[in-house]
Amino acid sequence: MKTIRYMHPVDGSVHLGIVVGDDVYSVTDKVASWTDPVPMWQTLRALHLDMRSVEERLCVGDSLSYRNLTSEGRLLPPVLAPEVWASGVTYERSRVARNAETQLQDSVYDRVYTATRPELFFKATAERLVPPGQSLKLRSDSAWMVPEPELSVVISSHGDIIGYTIGNDLSSRDIEGENPLYLPQAKIFAASCSLGPALVWCDPTVDPLAWEIEMRIERAGDTVFLGNVALTQLRRPLSELVSYLLRDNPILDGTTLMTGTGIVPPDEFTLQPGDVVAIEIQAIGQLVNPISAQGTRTVAMEAKV
Amino acid sequence: MKTIRYMHPVDGSVHLGIVVGDDVYSVTDKVASWTDPVPMWQTLRALHLDMRSVEERLCVGDSLSYRNLTSEGRLLPPVLAPEVWASGVTYERSRVARNAETQLQDSVYDRVYTATRPELFFKATAERLVPPGQSLKLRSDSAWMVPEPELSVVISSHGDIIGYTIGNDLSSRDIEGENPLYLPQAKIFAASCSLGPALVWCDPTVDPLAWEIEMRIERAGDTVFLGNVALTQLRRPLSELVSYLLRDNPILDGTTLMTGTGIVPPDEFTLQPGDVVAIEIQAIGQLVNPISAQGTRTVAMEAKV
Amino acid sequence: MKTIRYMHPVDGSVHLGIVVGDDVYSVTDKVASWTDPVPMWQTLRALHLDMRSVEERLCVGDSLSYRNLTSEGRLLPPVLAPEVWASGVTYERSRVARNAETQLQDSVYDRVYTATRPELFFKATAERLVPPGQSLKLRSDSAWMVPEPELSVVISSHGDIIGYTIGNDLSSRDIEGENPLYLPQAKIFAASCSLGPALVWCDPTVDPLAWEIEMRIERAGDTVFLGNVALTQLRRPLSELVSYLLRDNPILDGTTLMTGTGIVPPDEFTLQPGDVVAIEIQAIGQLVNPISAQGTRTVAMEAKV
Amino acid sequence: MKTIRYMHPVDGSVHLGIVVGDDVYSVTDKVASWTDPVPMWQTLRALHLDMRSVEERLCVGDSLSYRNLTSEGRLLPPVLAPEVWASGVTYERSRVARNAETQLQDSVYDRVYTATRPELFFKATAERLVPPGQSLKLRSDSAWMVPEPELSVVISSHGDIIGYTIGNDLSSRDIEGENPLYLPQAKIFAASCSLGPALVWCDPTVDPLAWEIEMRIERAGDTVFLGNVALTQLRRPLSELVSYLLRDNPILDGTTLMTGTGIVPPDEFTLQPGDVVAIEIQAIGQLVNPISAQGTRTVAMEAKV
Repeated sequence: MKTIRYMHPVDGSVHLGIVVGDDVYSVTDKVASWTDPVPMWQTLRALHLDMRSVEERLCVGDSLSYRNLTSEGRLLPPVLAPEVWASGVTYERSRVARNAETQLQDSVYDRVYTATRPELFFKATAERLVPPGQSLKLRSDSAWMVPEPELSVVISSHGDIIGYTIGNDLSSRDIEGENPLYLPQAKIFAASCSLGPALVWCDPTVDPLAWEIEMRIERAGDTVFLGNVALTQLRRPLSELVSYLLRDNPILDGTTLMTGTGIVPPDEFTLQPGDVVAIEIQAIGQLVNPISAQGTRTVAMEAKV
Repeated sequence: MKTIRYMHPVDGSVHLGIVVGDDVYSVTDKVASWTDPVPMWQTLRALHLDMRSVEERLCVGDSLSYRNLTSEGRLLPPVLAPEVWASGVTYERSRVARNAETQLQDSVYDRVYTATRPELFFKATAERLVPPGQSLKLRSDSAWMVPEPELSVVISSHGDIIGYTIGNDLSSRDIEGENPLYLPQAKIFAASCSLGPALVWCDPTVDPLAWEIEMRIERAGDTVFLGNVALTQLRRPLSELVSYLLRDNPILDGTTLMTGTGIVPPDEFTLQPGDVVAIEIQAIGQLVNPISAQGTRTVAMEAKV
Repeated sequence: MKTIRYMHPVDGSVHLGIVVGDDVYSVTDKVASWTDPVPMWQTLRALHLDMRSVEERLCVGDSLSYRNLTSEGRLLPPVLAPEVWASGVTYERSRVARNAETQLQDSVYDRVYTATRPELFFKATAERLVPPGQSLKLRSDSAWMVPEPELSVVISSHGDIIGYTIGNDLSSRDIEGENPLYLPQAKIFAASCSLGPALVWCDPTVDPLAWEIEMRIERAGDTVFLGNVALTQLRRPLSELVSYLLRDNPILDGTTLMTGTGIVPPDEFTLQPGDVVAIEIQAIGQLVNPISAQGTRTVAMEAKV
Repeated sequence: MKTIRYMHPVDGSVHLGIVVGDDVYSVTDKVASWTDPVPMWQTLRALHLDMRSVEERLCVGDSLSYRNLTSEGRLLPPVLAPEVWASGVTYERSRVARNAETQLQDSVYDRVYTATRPELFFKATAERLVPPGQSLKLRSDSAWMVPEPELSVVISSHGDIIGYTIGNDLSSRDIEGENPLYLPQAKIFAASCSLGPALVWCDPTVDPLAWEIEMRIERAGDTVFLGNVALTQLRRPLSELVSYLLRDNPILDGTTLMTGTGIVPPDEFTLQPGDVVAIEIQAIGQLVNPISAQGTRTVAMEAKV
């Protein structure tokens, strides 16, 4: 099952919808309290409901066009994640890149790559999340910024995997490179993270390790970077990352964990305002975000009620 | 002006109160929407109200005993901080301690101590905050844990300083020592942070740099550590820390920034369940927290509404 | 299926529970957003779920004792009704009683009894509702007050019947008797209405017209009134009452409609503080409320969030 | 002081504003939690603040045009009244009119006009309120409908008068005329009540009894009714009406009480779709509402959160 969240074209209200081809069936029209996948997931699990039969019953009546919702800029993050966490140095390629940017000899990156404990860090709150199609913003005090395309898992407060989406962990390489203690500043800032476009629900038939991520960066109509990686290259099991995140650490339902990046543009590459970053995992879709400079302070309107 | 937040002895509702000696006057009884200092501060500022005359008008009618509220465990964090951030290596003593715990030669701590950019990190959310008098909990996978007593500033979304409180940034020295990339795991966990007991409102007559912090750790009735530091030892101006926190980073009103620790127990010291940590800044009061092991997952009940 | 709402004995949080004999299984423990029957009903309907299989899946794990919850005063109204409406003169007995109290010759009660349009009136808001077991309060300016025991239907915003409960419409006969224009004052006041103890969900096997209502009033240990009536005596179909209520009148899900009373104590009877009113419909249970004088203004704590 | 509530032209958010001539100064821009007069009133009272100096401090910075907000349909009810109550037969003219419509000989209207106890009834909830400029809707089952122009008082939960506004109590004369027991159905229905356009705050200099109400009804460009009445004709003191409303009846801050109508169109007059009703009290402004037929069920979007 694949769901999205969107603002309704008529009244702007937030809807959860099931995507079947280009058809989007509102779940919220049928169950008003389901504007987010979390309460729906919780209910299906408590009632041991078969996902296929639920989907059949909800995919009736009017539908909207997924293509239109996307092109009209109505998509929202597929889950209203209360917190987004991320993992570091979980791919060989990432270890190499981090060593290139650091100014330290005895690399902390080499060590974490092989250590038992993974690197985990706090990446974003719901207010700092950018919906699919909206602009990620460059830090104004960084001259070396890159997107990080990552498989992201949406989890429950108990660590159950609810589903999978794509994340873009926009990062400053020079700030982190100057000192690993600057990592929070290299990672957490306005409009530094995007999730989407859809959530593919966890299901025995869904195997994310069989997926591939592709990232394309366009500038003035040209592709200035194109890279891809198979999820088989991810060094750590998803369950290990989730288990460390929950260790003595209470999280809320819907928390999202980005699993690290295996695609790194060459060291001389930095993002510029006007670039467009498109990250694709075929089963999920394509997460597209233009890049812009920091401007006025933007807070996503639906974030905290 | 000094305020606290507390659960009302009769019905458990959340109140904001002004403290005068042992008397606590409920602000919430007079203005129902003021259960937190943030909306009150916003109003006083918008109306250019003189803090002294406001205090006079609100400190009338019945009062409760501050001593009783404290001993009955009714205090809450003095602000419902949506996010707590912290600063690192802002005192000479901290730089030395961090070097002792790290296994790296070219120390990242030496470098950040003298660098232009301070170390800032995400410490806690409202859910992870422990009220004054309640237990901070040790990480179950760390064998070297210490309290960090810190002057903490409550700020507005624009970076105005609303007031000052005391923070205890419970930290794992061995996890951070193993690799600075583990900092988030050494810092963010259940019941890892406490703020309180009171908020001293910013005022031209209040000069926190004239204050001193004292920390005492008791074990089975004995004082096993006692240390103090003058705020003049803080290497960075408060305004510099706040300004870096807000750089391209949208925060919400009431966000609290801990300013780093200048008191570090000897390297052979680690906290044990049953210890009691008391941190005092005379103008603010004494923040007391027992120490316990991680148990069942605890989420502060008033946190998210 | 029979559900109740209650305050959890441990933390006072609001739970929806399914009752099977003396066992109460928390629904809220399994689906956190279901603290009221309305969202649960909406979901079951949208997914075409069989009530029996849902009940089976939710009635697992720990249970609480219905008897204990009741005796410890932990029950809440079975639905957080945003509005309670009531019907008048829907039984022959009620018509006679109303004529006795009125001082008008050409009785408005005779006329409404046989008219096409039923009498409907606004009875209470969630704040004025009294939980099962708690005190209904006499109007301080009335000398002739009676309980009115009524079958009550909980409906959706579209007029679907969600389920059935018992209502007690405490009324002032002398205020209404003085002038029918005083009806709102005879009906709407603090602690003038109670619903409960349970909600019996609408189901093809449930036929409320086969039920009987019994009311017993006790004073100082003696039964001072005992009466009963069969629902077959209700002059108007439930669907007619609901249909008039919704005519051009938008209501919210969970609105409850009391259907009028067919049991009226003799004209010389008036309630006194200390009386206990018990209304029973066997399939639903017994709604018990002591009677007290108006005192301090009481607002049910969970009412508006 | 005169305030309005409006949807901000840029982002649609709800603002409270102070009106000075054609200038509207947002209060909400300065104190985010003041989107309604109630919390502001509560604060001014608790701090004994002088209304004039508060107004001076808030009426600074950018302003919007009151005329533009009105013509663009951005006004909201001046208070988010949780309940609207109304009074009946408080003017001689109203007594005569009610007798004309009733089919009863011994008139309940004559009796209530001279009785000690006034007629009070529940008129509307926030969901049923229509903002200034928006359509009031005729009941589909009534052939004789009239507007009722009324001075309305906004009160606190303790019965303090916060301020004054204009109310239009759209009513069905034939339904009420058939039987006084049908009053709730003649009064409570979708889009049956409007309040506005502004709130004039209670102040020693404000004397509503010196005011006059004028009502004009236009149809296809012609004035089909014009009437006026002086508030001195109101038979009952405002304090008497408020005091009966609060008798044993808990209300919430912001509850609004309409005080009855003294302007009644001739008996042969009934409203038609397309009519426009304008009610003016000079000190408050002009409340204008077009009249339309009941259509789809409309629920004001900001009502319940």
